[in-house]
Amino acid sequence: EPAGVNNHTKRSFPVLRFNYEHVRIPFEISLWILLASLMKLGFHLLPGLSSVVPESCLLIVVGLLVGGLIKASGEELPVLDSESSSVPAAANHPERRLLPAHPPVRREHRHHPDLRRGGDPLERAVPGGHADAVAQLKASRLGGVDLLACMIFSAIVSAVDPVAVLAVFEEININELLHVLVFGESLLNDAVTVVLYHLFEEYVGVTSFSALDVVLAVLCFLVVSLGGVLVGATYGILAALTSRFTTNLRVIEPLLVFVYSYMAYLSAEVFHLSGIMSLIACGVVMRPYVEANMSHKSYTTIKYFLKMWSSVSETLIFIFLGVSTVAGPHDWNWTFVTVSVILSLVSRVLGVVGLTYIINKFRIAKLTPTDQFILAYGGLRGAIAFSLGFLLKPQHFPMRNMFLTSIITIVFFTVFVQGMTIQPLVELLAVKRKREGKG
Amino acid sequence: EPAGVNNHTKRSFPVLRFNYEHVRIPFEISLWILLASLMKLGFHLLPGLSSVVPESCLLIVVGLLVGGLIKASGEELPVLDSESSSVPAAANHPERRLLPAHPPVRREHRHHPDLRRGGDPLERAVPGGHADAVAQLKASRLGGVDLLACMIFSAIVSAVDPVAVLAVFEEININELLHVLVFGESLLNDAVTVVLYHLFEEYVGVTSFSALDVVLAVLCFLVVSLGGVLVGATYGILAALTSRFTTNLRVIEPLLVFVYSYMAYLSAEVFHLSGIMSLIACGVVMRPYVEANMSHKSYTTIKYFLKMWSSVSETLIFIFLGVSTVAGPHDWNWTFVTVSVILSLVSRVLGVVGLTYIINKFRIAKLTPTDQFILAYGGLRGAIAFSLGFLLKPQHFPMRNMFLTSIITIVFFTVFVQGMTIQPLVELLAVKRKREGKG
Repeated sequence: EPAGVNNHTKRSFPVLRFNYEHVRIPFEISLWILLASLMKLGFHLLPGLSSVVPESCLLIVVGLLVGGLIKASGEELPVLDSESSSVPAAANHPERRLLPAHPPVRREHRHHPDLRRGGDPLERAVPGGHADAVAQLKASRLGGVDLLACMIFSAIVSAVDPVAVLAVFEEININELLHVLVFGESLLNDAVTVVLYHLFEEYVGVTSFSALDVVLAVLCFLVVSLGGVLVGATYGILAALTSRFTTNLRVIEPLLVFVYSYMAYLSAEVFHLSGIMSLIACGVVMRPYVEANMSHKSYTTIKYFLKMWSSVSETLIFIFLGVSTVAGPHDWNWTFVTVSVILSLVSRVLGVVGLTYIINKFRIAKLTPTDQFILAYGGLRGAIAFSLGFLLKPQHFPMRNMFLTSIITIVFFTVFVQGMTIQPLVELLAVKRKREGKG
Repeated sequence: EPAGVNNHTKRSFPVLRFNYEHVRIPFEISLWILLASLMKLGFHLLPGLSSVVPESCLLIVVGLLVGGLIKASGEELPVLDSESSSVPAAANHPERRLLPAHPPVRREHRHHPDLRRGGDPLERAVPGGHADAVAQLKASRLGGVDLLACMIFSAIVSAVDPVAVLAVFEEININELLHVLVFGESLLNDAVTVVLYHLFEEYVGVTSFSALDVVLAVLCFLVVSLGGVLVGATYGILAALTSRFTTNLRVIEPLLVFVYSYMAYLSAEVFHLSGIMSLIACGVVMRPYVEANMSHKSYTTIKYFLKMWSSVSETLIFIFLGVSTVAGPHDWNWTFVTVSVILSLVSRVLGVVGLTYIINKFRIAKLTPTDQFILAYGGLRGAIAFSLGFLLKPQHFPMRNMFLTSIITIVFFTVFVQGMTIQPLVELLAVKRKREGKG
C-alpha cells in the first residue's frame, strides 16, 4: 500500500481510489491459498512435530484456531459447503467442482474392492444393516430419527475419506497393496455415492421399498460406473490420438492432458455418471501413448503441477474442516454420538473382515490379519462426511444439527485418535513397509 | 456418451439422468480451450501456411468462421466483453481478470519508453491533438461527435496491442532492442490506461478543463505507476524471503511464485494502481532470489506452465476477436473510417519519429530509421482496442456503434495488411535480426 497519498475527494478528479469489492473474491481465495501454503511450510520446518502428529491433525487445529479468531472478531464464518456463496466456500468450490481432486464421495462401510474386481451388489444391503441397528437402539429416545434418516446418516458417516486415509498412509509408508486397496475403495466410492445420493433424494418421505426399486438401484450402479468408464476411455483415446501431432507445438501438451481429463469428468457428470471413474479411465487409457509422445519438460510440468495442486487442495480441505467446526450449529446428544462412534468402528471392522474373507478366496497374495487391521483402523472419516452432512436440508431432516455434531465427533475421533495412534500400532505389529527404494 | 441405455422415467427411480446446466460453464470453457488448442495444432501442421500468414490473422479468420457458423445456427453470439455473463466471455474473463496476461490496456500513440526511463508528462498532451484534428475534420458532417467522444476514441484506437505486436515480432525474429521497446511501451500502457479511463469517465458531459485538472492527472499518473511498482516490490521481497524456507517442501514453490505475483496484481488493483506494473515489479524483485533457491523441477514447471498459458490466452483472444466481429452491431461511415485509419497511421509515425528523436539524444545505441519504421509499422491494434470500445456506454456515446466499426476496421487493417507485409518489408530493409543462438 503506497503511503502518504491521500484521497483528493475535494476536487472532482481523485488521484487515489480504493475499491476492494471488485477484487474481493480472487483476492481472498489467493490469500487463503497463500496462508495455507505458509502453514504447510511452517510444519515442515518443525521436523519433531510432524513425526508425531499427522499433518491433517495439525491443519484441522489450525482451522479451529482460525475459525475461533474469525468468530471472535465478529466476522461471518466460511463453511465447507459447495452451495454457499461465501468466499472461502468459493475457494473450496473450484477445487471440488472445477478440479475433481476431491469430489463429494459417499460410500458404504464394508466394501473393499481390489482394483481388479468391479462393485458387487452385496454392498447395497449394507447401510440398511447399520441403520437398522441404530434405529432400533434409538427409537425409544430419539423419535425424529426414522429409517430413511438413519440410512442417510449411516451412508454419510461410513464415507471413508481417501484424502485423510492416504495422507496418513503416506506418512507411515504403508506397503503398496494397502495403498492400492484404499485407492480402489475411493474409486468405487464415487459410483456408489451418485447412486445412493439420488436414491435417497428420490425416496424422502417414502417408507416402503419394492424389489423393483432394489433391482433398478443395482442397475443404476452399473450404469453409473461402467458408463463413466466408457466416457473416460473415449476421451482417453482422443487424447492419445491428439498427442501424435504435437511434435511442433510441445508447449500445449500439458494443456491437452488437463483439458481432455477435465472434459471426461464433466461429460460423465452431465449424465450423472461417475466423474471420478471417467477421469481415472481417461488417465489409464491415455497414459502409455501420451507419455511416449510427450516431451520430457511437458511430462515434468504435468506431474509437478498436479502434485502441487493436490497438496494445496488437501491442505485447504483440512483447514476448512476446522473452520467449519467452529462455525456449525451444534446439537450434542450423548447417546447418539456414543452409539454412532462405536457402531461406525464395529461396522468398519466387520466390513473389512467380511469382505477380505471373500476376496482372500480368490487372491494369490492373501491379505494378512495385520493388513486387515490397518485397513479397518485406517478408515478415517474426513471432510467428505462433514460436507455431505452439511448439505442435508433441515426441512427434510429435522435432526440435521444432531447428525452434524455426531459426524464431526466421528471425524475428529478417527482423524485424531486413530490417525495419531496408527503409526505406533503399525510399528508394533511390524507391518511390511513399502520398500525403501521406491516412492 | 453411453449408448443403449434409455431414461426409465416411467418408474419413480430413473437409471440415467441428464443435466447439462450444472456443468455448462466449465464444460463450454474447456471446449473453447480445447478447440483453440486443436486449431493452433492444425496450423503448425501446415508449415507452408504459417510462414506466409501470421498466426494471429489465421486465428481471427477462424473466429470469423466460427462466429458465422454460430450466427447461422441461430445461437446467441459470445462477445469479447468483460461485463457480459455469456460463457465464452466467461472463458475470456478469467484470463483477463484472474490471470493478468492481457488486462485492459489503453495508451497513447506517441509514447515509446525505453525500459530505463519512466513515463514523462509530455504524453498527456497527445491524444488531444489527434482528437482535435478528427473533431475539426468531422464537425460539419458528424454532429454527434464532440471533443470528449473524440478523445475517448483516439485514446482507444491508439492502444497498440502488445499481444498482437509481440506475436508478429516473435515470428519475424526481430532484434531484442525492438522487442524490449514494445514490451516497455505495453508496460506503461497500463498506468496510462487507468488514468485516462477514470479521467474521461469523470468528465463525461463536461466541456472545459482547468490547469489544475491537468496537474492532477499528471500526479495521478505518477501515483498509479510508482504506487504499482511499490506494491509489486513489496510482494517480491516477501516471495524472496519465503523461498528461503522451501527446501523441505519443493512442491509448493511454483504455487508461491504464482500466488505472490497474483496477489501483487490484485493488491495494486484494489487502489486502482497499475496492476501490470506491480506484477512486473514483483517478478523483477523476486526473480534472482527465488530462482537461486528453487529446485530445477519447480523452475521448469513455472516457466513451461506460463508459456503454455500465455500461448492459449493469446489464441483465445484472437479467436474471440473474430467471433465478436460477426456479432457486433455495425454502423459504417466512410468518412469516419477512412479518416480514422489514415490519422492513426500518421499519428503512429509522428509519435515514433518524434519520441525516438528525443530519446536518441540520450542513447548510446541509437535507434536507426529502419528500427523506427518497424516500430511505427508494427504498431498493430488488437483485442484491447475492440474490447475498450465495446465497454463504452451507448447512453453516453450515441456514436458507439460507428466507433466500434471503425475500431474493427483499424484492427483488421493493421493486423492483416501491416501484419502480413511486415516480414517482406523487414527482409527488404535487412533489419538486424535476433542472434540465432538465442531465443
